[in-house]
Amino acid sequence: MKAAILGATGLVGQRFVQLLNDHAWFEVTTLTGSERSSGTEYAKAVNWRMETPLKASMGELRVQPSEPKNVDADVVFSALPADQATVIEEEFAKAGYAVVSNASSHRMDQDVPLMNPEANFNHLTLIDEQRRRRKWDGALVTNPNCTTAVLTIPLKPISDNFGLKNVVMSSMQAASGAGYPGVASLDIIDNVIPYISGEEEKVQQETQKILGAPGESATFKVSASCHRVAVLDGHTEAVFVQTERHASPEQIAECMEEFAAEPQKLKLPTAPPRPVIVRKEQDRPQPRFDRGEGRGMSIVVGRVRKDPVFDGAKFVALGHNTIRGAAGCALLIAESMKSQRYI
Amino acid sequence: MKAAILGATGLVGQRFVQLLNDHAWFEVTTLTGSERSSGTEYAKAVNWRMETPLKASMGELRVQPSEPKNVDADVVFSALPADQATVIEEEFAKAGYAVVSNASSHRMDQDVPLMNPEANFNHLTLIDEQRRRRKWDGALVTNPNCTTAVLTIPLKPISDNFGLKNVVMSSMQAASGAGYPGVASLDIIDNVIPYISGEEEKVQQETQKILGAPGESATFKVSASCHRVAVLDGHTEAVFVQTERHASPEQIAECMEEFAAEPQKLKLPTAPPRPVIVRKEQDRPQPRFDRGEGRGMSIVVGRVRKDPVFDGAKFVALGHNTIRGAAGCALLIAESMKSQRYI
Amino acid sequence: MKAAILGATGLVGQRFVQLLNDHAWFEVTTLTGSERSSGTEYAKAVNWRMETPLKASMGELRVQPSEPKNVDADVVFSALPADQATVIEEEFAKAGYAVVSNASSHRMDQDVPLMNPEANFNHLTLIDEQRRRRKWDGALVTNPNCTTAVLTIPLKPISDNFGLKNVVMSSMQAASGAGYPGVASLDIIDNVIPYISGEEEKVQQETQKILGAPGESATFKVSASCHRVAVLDGHTEAVFVQTERHASPEQIAECMEEFAAEPQKLKLPTAPPRPVIVRKEQDRPQPRFDRGEGRGMSIVVGRVRKDPVFDGAKFVALGHNTIRGAAGCALLIAESMKSQRYI
Amino acid sequence: MKAAILGATGLVGQRFVQLLNDHAWFEVTTLTGSERSSGTEYAKAVNWRMETPLKASMGELRVQPSEPKNVDADVVFSALPADQATVIEEEFAKAGYAVVSNASSHRMDQDVPLMNPEANFNHLTLIDEQRRRRKWDGALVTNPNCTTAVLTIPLKPISDNFGLKNVVMSSMQAASGAGYPGVASLDIIDNVIPYISGEEEKVQQETQKILGAPGESATFKVSASCHRVAVLDGHTEAVFVQTERHASPEQIAECMEEFAAEPQKLKLPTAPPRPVIVRKEQDRPQPRFDRGEGRGMSIVVGRVRKDPVFDGAKFVALGHNTIRGAAGCALLIAESMKSQRYI
Repeated sequence: MKAAILGATGLVGQRFVQLLNDHAWFEVTTLTGSERSSGTEYAKAVNWRMETPLKASMGELRVQPSEPKNVDADVVFSALPADQATVIEEEFAKAGYAVVSNASSHRMDQDVPLMNPEANFNHLTLIDEQRRRRKWDGALVTNPNCTTAVLTIPLKPISDNFGLKNVVMSSMQAASGAGYPGVASLDIIDNVIPYISGEEEKVQQETQKILGAPGESATFKVSASCHRVAVLDGHTEAVFVQTERHASPEQIAECMEEFAAEPQKLKLPTAPPRPVIVRKEQDRPQPRFDRGEGRGMSIVVGRVRKDPVFDGAKFVALGHNTIRGAAGCALLIAESMKSQRYI
Repeated sequence: MKAAILGATGLVGQRFVQLLNDHAWFEVTTLTGSERSSGTEYAKAVNWRMETPLKASMGELRVQPSEPKNVDADVVFSALPADQATVIEEEFAKAGYAVVSNASSHRMDQDVPLMNPEANFNHLTLIDEQRRRRKWDGALVTNPNCTTAVLTIPLKPISDNFGLKNVVMSSMQAASGAGYPGVASLDIIDNVIPYISGEEEKVQQETQKILGAPGESATFKVSASCHRVAVLDGHTEAVFVQTERHASPEQIAECMEEFAAEPQKLKLPTAPPRPVIVRKEQDRPQPRFDRGEGRGMSIVVGRVRKDPVFDGAKFVALGHNTIRGAAGCALLIAESMKSQRYI
Repeated sequence: MKAAILGATGLVGQRFVQLLNDHAWFEVTTLTGSERSSGTEYAKAVNWRMETPLKASMGELRVQPSEPKNVDADVVFSALPADQATVIEEEFAKAGYAVVSNASSHRMDQDVPLMNPEANFNHLTLIDEQRRRRKWDGALVTNPNCTTAVLTIPLKPISDNFGLKNVVMSSMQAASGAGYPGVASLDIIDNVIPYISGEEEKVQQETQKILGAPGESATFKVSASCHRVAVLDGHTEAVFVQTERHASPEQIAECMEEFAAEPQKLKLPTAPPRPVIVRKEQDRPQPRFDRGEGRGMSIVVGRVRKDPVFDGAKFVALGHNTIRGAAGCALLIAESMKSQRYI
Repeated sequence: MKAAILGATGLVGQRFVQLLNDHAWFEVTTLTGSERSSGTEYAKAVNWRMETPLKASMGELRVQPSEPKNVDADVVFSALPADQATVIEEEFAKAGYAVVSNASSHRMDQDVPLMNPEANFNHLTLIDEQRRRRKWDGALVTNPNCTTAVLTIPLKPISDNFGLKNVVMSSMQAASGAGYPGVASLDIIDNVIPYISGEEEKVQQETQKILGAPGESATFKVSASCHRVAVLDGHTEAVFVQTERHASPEQIAECMEEFAAEPQKLKLPTAPPRPVIVRKEQDRPQPRFDRGEGRGMSIVVGRVRKDPVFDGAKFVALGHNTIRGAAGCALLIAESMKSQRYI
């Protein structure tokens, strides 16, 4: 199947290009970018920041404008900035494309699935309602913001097994989450920035939407405090959880460890063998050593222990913010859609 | 008055030396160190890591063994490692010295004041009981671990004004907290270490002891998750608070801003003009820009905002871990003791 | 005397503001900035990145456009970007202002002194020729680029005492040299960037101009390789020197240590007591510990040792790139000009 | 063939373990370590710092003492500290083992080949002399220190084509070069350390030995200045070269690009397809993006340009210090020995 990437020169766009290099199902046929870069070869238009080299055949593609008529594809991955995504993504869906977007613009639209496939595979059915309501043949599905993507995978089995009442989360986020050039070195060397615009609100709302029923946000409460640290890739999150039914730290660790969902059962190409890997060592997870687990798609959890405030559990979760938290998640959504014939 | 520093070659020992360079009340007469360094000049025995140069007169002092007979002082500051502190500090107190210690060994002893002077100046009275019970003329007082020192200053006015019910805290701690050489660069460049041995238990217990009545720990609950980040100095803490009586974020910010305690009233030399500085900018406090406030003795708080879980407030607090969190706090304790004639 | 700062919101502009806070001779009366920021208070227009807080009275000044008619000053410090500096600085000089510039635009103009005062105080006399030729009452003097500023101070006494034949220099430059936001954190964490646009050519030409006679570049050869490393402030330079007359490493260290020039003799306010500080320790200078020497105006040299290739000496030099290498150097130039009645 | 690793728990030892995980020719049968760790499983004895997980079968090996009787192997890789290597390596050679060592102890022994295989494959013949002289059946061959390993690969084709007269080199070395824990984070965050004990002497001597005839050091001169920067892996070196016969930068780039030696011709398993990769971009090589080239065995060179001092060329070279600069180089030596039937 043919795939297009909208906004392919940015950091998330590059991650899409990298992950689609040798994908089992999708072949990239179109890369789009800003007007300024239109017509030039991708290799020249992009400031390639991935750790593996850009594949030559990908580099030779000419950058196109982000318009439906320039695109020849079965699925369209959007790494557009939010302000552009609002209109352009709807244009593509109207033109009949299946759009999977990393932009925040439509995430909270009621008839747009906000998906982290292991957490809410069943939200795919919202596409039917979306097509009815919006009178289009295409589809628009979004992945969560990177911090929520990391958080909701370990929360899902806890929610399923014990119910969620309260979640407090404090993040230590990687620089790549801000794109490129993004965070100035003068701001982050020997420093922490205790603020990421809009992030806490997103985490709070998106977590409830993902872990709720399709079209209906969950009612447990979420409080987030988001911080930037001097890490290249990988968001670390300190999570404190109060469950509805009592659960020991051991039980919570166990349910995360055993967790597997439709993407695993369907053996989707981008699905990690284990969505959550629970480490027993005292000092894990660590971004540099654990962000690559499951080719960046697993969440590594550690330090599952008693929480004295909630009489629940606290733990540390880590995930790759531009893979599980962005491009990888979108790919897994597209694979999920294809498996259910929405593409 | 004459002051001695036990364990003067370590990182906290150096901070004592630096802060006592030109102190209004105390003059350093003795520096002690390991057997290996005994007899050599301090300048040669120390691997000086402070950002200001070592004062020549200090560097010329010969390092002494950590024994009472080698010390000529009115007050003894201990930067000994915990395993040595247990016995040595008691020996000094028995020999009649007033010992102010940064070591964790005696912090939780019931008759040893664990003090952060703005938070529990009244705990000084425990010294009377200590003298009675232990039958010594000296005194042994401890400062809290660095993370607790930063946390308890902003919590105090909240506790006084609205009562504390639950406190959840997630820290991003500086490398200097682990001493020198401490954290290996291979462990912290492009990384976060989500574990600091014993730290969370200390924060939970010490916070309750400090904010309780003398000899009686408070009963509100504290849950901590402690992490090391690539910062040289300055611990950043994300704090979520549930109060007993309802308080808006504005009220909480206000009570912190207006907070002043005995050290301020008595104008003790090391007391910062304002124990808590509340910043209004969205992206403060930051370690590199705020750790020096009040010559490292102020806690800088920012992002005081509504917390959806506790219906209370969340905020970010920052303090200098080897000044307010160690040597500076110990100095302020000694000044407090002198003001009340315990020295 | 009254001073204006052109381009006051950038990183070097901020350093001028900070250094002129309490200057003995100059008082800031005008700050200029981009059109966009014109009319707003400086405190609001600037993203203050200095480690000390912005003085309130400075923050209240309203930003002016960079035009002579808006400026009321005896001396004008220019932190303009090179493309704007070319024309604007000439306009100010034509309007009668004494302009001291950090921009590269006019540095290599034959009748414009390129000054690092301890190295070429006598170049001030070029101002007379400049005024004749350009038919203006003002003056235009420039400071060198930051890397050259650090290099030429220790080279000067070597040149005076032994003559220079060849200089090879390899730099490890701080992020602040690229301004703000400047170097992206994704480019410099766990990385070195072995290229700084135009820097090597500047070092090679400017060093020869500074250490030559007024109006006549020196003929010794200079080869530079310039690299960016993960340091906030302070350029480190590995220098290999071939002298005309034989000199031992000890002699070279000695001549640097004893070096003093007109700014020291005249006790100019910004002149450091010692332009070069020679450290004996094996592992100095280091940016974090030595960049503040002489309030950022001293060059700290270490590891003066035999060089097997040139049969000369090699050493490591370090200086603060935005103080000695920019704003501080410009201030010292202005003080030098005033001392010789060019202002 | 069977391989043993002496000193397998250190950072270079771990790199050997990682590289030998799936080696075409060698299978690890013995891992040795300190007395303290003898008898325990490797997985428990090691603080694994590699970026890929430790293979389970390797982790289950029990650590042995570093004595010949405990070892069952055809080739012995030594990652011992220099002080232990001196005696132990000779014991193994005496006992008939082929020892390839990363330790510095025997590198400058006249009858011990110091090899970087692409640069001096012909030095293997020294083994014959060594056996005669030392009256043993084993063999002792060493790889150079990491900085020299990176330097001598690009120098070799220049030496072959144009002759070498003078080499000036200034390094920016990674933290992993100092082992683990090695460089303290308090020493390298926001800092450069301009000193690495013994390193400059090693670079100067070892480069001459490698690029000389077997048993006879070359006579061109080398001057090094070595510095530590905040990089995890990958040494960056600024190199200034004076050749005997005139060569343009283009000619020098070309001879490096076309360079291939015996390891390439013999297609040895660890030999990179191209020993030197010359990048044309202005800002390469960079450690984070280029240290993995040729699975860490290629040297990436960039910025080949005119050098005004030597009328030769200057360039920047980068190589992975614990692969090409240590364990990978030793593996390639062993493969070279096997290809010539010395193993």
